[in-house]
Amino acid sequence: MPLNPKRTVNELKELRQLTGDSNGAQRVAWTDTWLKAREWLQTKLSGLPVEQHYDAAGNNWITLPGNSPEALLLGGHLDSVPNGGWLDGSLGVLASLEVLRRFIEEFNGRPPVTIKLVDWADEEGARFGRSLFGSSAFAGTHSIDADRVRTDKDGVRLEAALERCGVDIDRLDEAGKERENASAYLELHIEQGPVLEGMGLPLAAVLGTKGVERHAVTFFGQEAHSGSTPMDVRRDALAAAAKLALEIRPIAARQKDAVCTMGSVKTYPGIVTAIVGRCETTLDQRDLDPVVLARMHGEAIEASERFAREEGCTAEWSRIWNIEPVPFHPELIQLCQEAIREIAVEAPCLPSGPLHDAAEVSRAGIPTVMMFVQSLGGISHNKIEDTKEEYIELSVVAFDGLANKAIAWIDGRGE
Amino acid sequence: MPLNPKRTVNELKELRQLTGDSNGAQRVAWTDTWLKAREWLQTKLSGLPVEQHYDAAGNNWITLPGNSPEALLLGGHLDSVPNGGWLDGSLGVLASLEVLRRFIEEFNGRPPVTIKLVDWADEEGARFGRSLFGSSAFAGTHSIDADRVRTDKDGVRLEAALERCGVDIDRLDEAGKERENASAYLELHIEQGPVLEGMGLPLAAVLGTKGVERHAVTFFGQEAHSGSTPMDVRRDALAAAAKLALEIRPIAARQKDAVCTMGSVKTYPGIVTAIVGRCETTLDQRDLDPVVLARMHGEAIEASERFAREEGCTAEWSRIWNIEPVPFHPELIQLCQEAIREIAVEAPCLPSGPLHDAAEVSRAGIPTVMMFVQSLGGISHNKIEDTKEEYIELSVVAFDGLANKAIAWIDGRGE
Repeated sequence: MPLNPKRTVNELKELRQLTGDSNGAQRVAWTDTWLKAREWLQTKLSGLPVEQHYDAAGNNWITLPGNSPEALLLGGHLDSVPNGGWLDGSLGVLASLEVLRRFIEEFNGRPPVTIKLVDWADEEGARFGRSLFGSSAFAGTHSIDADRVRTDKDGVRLEAALERCGVDIDRLDEAGKERENASAYLELHIEQGPVLEGMGLPLAAVLGTKGVERHAVTFFGQEAHSGSTPMDVRRDALAAAAKLALEIRPIAARQKDAVCTMGSVKTYPGIVTAIVGRCETTLDQRDLDPVVLARMHGEAIEASERFAREEGCTAEWSRIWNIEPVPFHPELIQLCQEAIREIAVEAPCLPSGPLHDAAEVSRAGIPTVMMFVQSLGGISHNKIEDTKEEYIELSVVAFDGLANKAIAWIDGRGE
Repeated sequence: MPLNPKRTVNELKELRQLTGDSNGAQRVAWTDTWLKAREWLQTKLSGLPVEQHYDAAGNNWITLPGNSPEALLLGGHLDSVPNGGWLDGSLGVLASLEVLRRFIEEFNGRPPVTIKLVDWADEEGARFGRSLFGSSAFAGTHSIDADRVRTDKDGVRLEAALERCGVDIDRLDEAGKERENASAYLELHIEQGPVLEGMGLPLAAVLGTKGVERHAVTFFGQEAHSGSTPMDVRRDALAAAAKLALEIRPIAARQKDAVCTMGSVKTYPGIVTAIVGRCETTLDQRDLDPVVLARMHGEAIEASERFAREEGCTAEWSRIWNIEPVPFHPELIQLCQEAIREIAVEAPCLPSGPLHDAAEVSRAGIPTVMMFVQSLGGISHNKIEDTKEEYIELSVVAFDGLANKAIAWIDGRGE
């Protein structure tokens, strides 16, 4: 069973057919469609000499025991955002599966180190606003008390959604056991941005993930009748929120490569005949430099308070989640560049704006690197997300090469 | 049973207790709480020599036959917005009930003209976005085909909600029969704005209602990943909407007394990790002058298209509803001022920013006038909506005086 990158493309299409619709991928974590995707992955293991289990946080571990208990971890995530793309997360899982098959073939089922494929649970946090759910439990950085009270837009509690999938929120800690003997972690992912396409290159080594400050910002004004309340006495919570939605753009633009996004606005009472009395927004700010990130966060707070004052409103901030910038392992970054250079002209290094489970693994002290493959149009989290098939195949070959180098690196460190 | 304005205050409190909660009035039309309010009103008719029926649009008619079939209509509406105030609409119904009782007493159950109390169905349009539902059916200005497809936020169709309350959408026309012999219409209402309070006066005669242009404005951009999409390549639908939310304020401010409101903003996909690809907003614009109203509407369209272009988005407009400015009857306005002057120092005339069923009645060619009583803080459509009790009582006395003058006026016209 030599490496067959075309099979990876075909399996990605099969998964898309099974778990997507005309609006895109629908593999939102803790839903039936996500469970269906995981069942489908199980069918691919038939006849392979691997052990499979779900850990206490719902991460799916597929283990090929090697001569050494020291383990090379390869991963991704099958969950998607609603109306998401076909490659985000699933490319990592299915490329890892292909590499696993190649190891089984090459080493007669017994590679020099143990190989573990991991499908992380709920990378996206799309339903409960909690990204990197499974990998943070693995890393021991999760906070059960903060997560317990989360609800989805229908009011379903996270705890109940987990239970339905066999995960007990009080036992998440136990997922930390999986860190034992983890010697390195590799993840292949689409870039999800336009940089590689702009450079005309297929692949990059990833330097690390940008830090994120993610907050709920709510403005409180005064609900009043839209017909009888003169413009000059209004306390319009939407006006304050609209000013912030526009101000986050210069706040980001003053920094190199930083991004700020208002992804959600909710108006209350939200009817055509009333001035908005309460406006709930979300703010997501990212940068590689922790100093820059803290500065942008402070500027947004200051701006929100200024706009609230101007509009006779108040502003309240509540942190949804945050993570510091996470640099990847310098030696593995180098190996990743070498693997890319063996099949491509250049091997650039990029930071990652999106978060990835790799950040949590790296924070747990496990040497980590990611490889990016070009995205068309820089679009992700959308049904039109795409990558040229030849580049998908190229990425599987390069990732396989990186896995080989990583095994040698782990072996070498043990000597 | 002489006029007892304190009873009106007590009945308003009784209704608040029965159909409100800690968030305010919950008498949203076509809901159980609204039906409960209507049942409660029925109990107040016990022992009165009146006929009661619901018309084909769900309007509640309580008739005291007089010596002439010519009818004086007195009205209001029991329905409220969600989390609404205790006086909006119900003051008109309960003050009319008190005037009806006084007529029964004074004329031994047989006044010179017929008196009809009407509780209009769904004045607010809070659930289906269709204001003045019952009164427009009465006036013959409704459009069944446009209303049939309306749904509430849970996807319930208007047609189904009506059916549950015994109203057949295909028979709305028949409510027009109630116009027969209608000689004048009087409505007492809280101002719902801050003007009378600012003047230090309790009561005003109303000149007419402002015209309204009410539209859904949707911006289409490109949903994309909030972490990986550089600021300068985004097509953020929320940014275009935020610009419009702020621009409607100078558009209104360039006119005297005009108002523009963005009451609802919805973001899609509406998650913290994605740039907004689609942003649905509502716009409500009002003015007394049809030329000014048309100008403001045009300016908002132009601005939305400019902002869409600036943000790489498109804008789509869809009319939710509109009504031209409706002036009330000059002679009845004069009678209203006279009735106010009999108990207050001054009798100012005001336009009404909010819509009222009186506008539909007036459009049907029935001489109409409204009386306003001061609102505290100018707040309405909110649980803190309030009016001093002494002013509520004063308004019942003045409305009763107006009803007397209107009877004489109808009688005089018939001569």
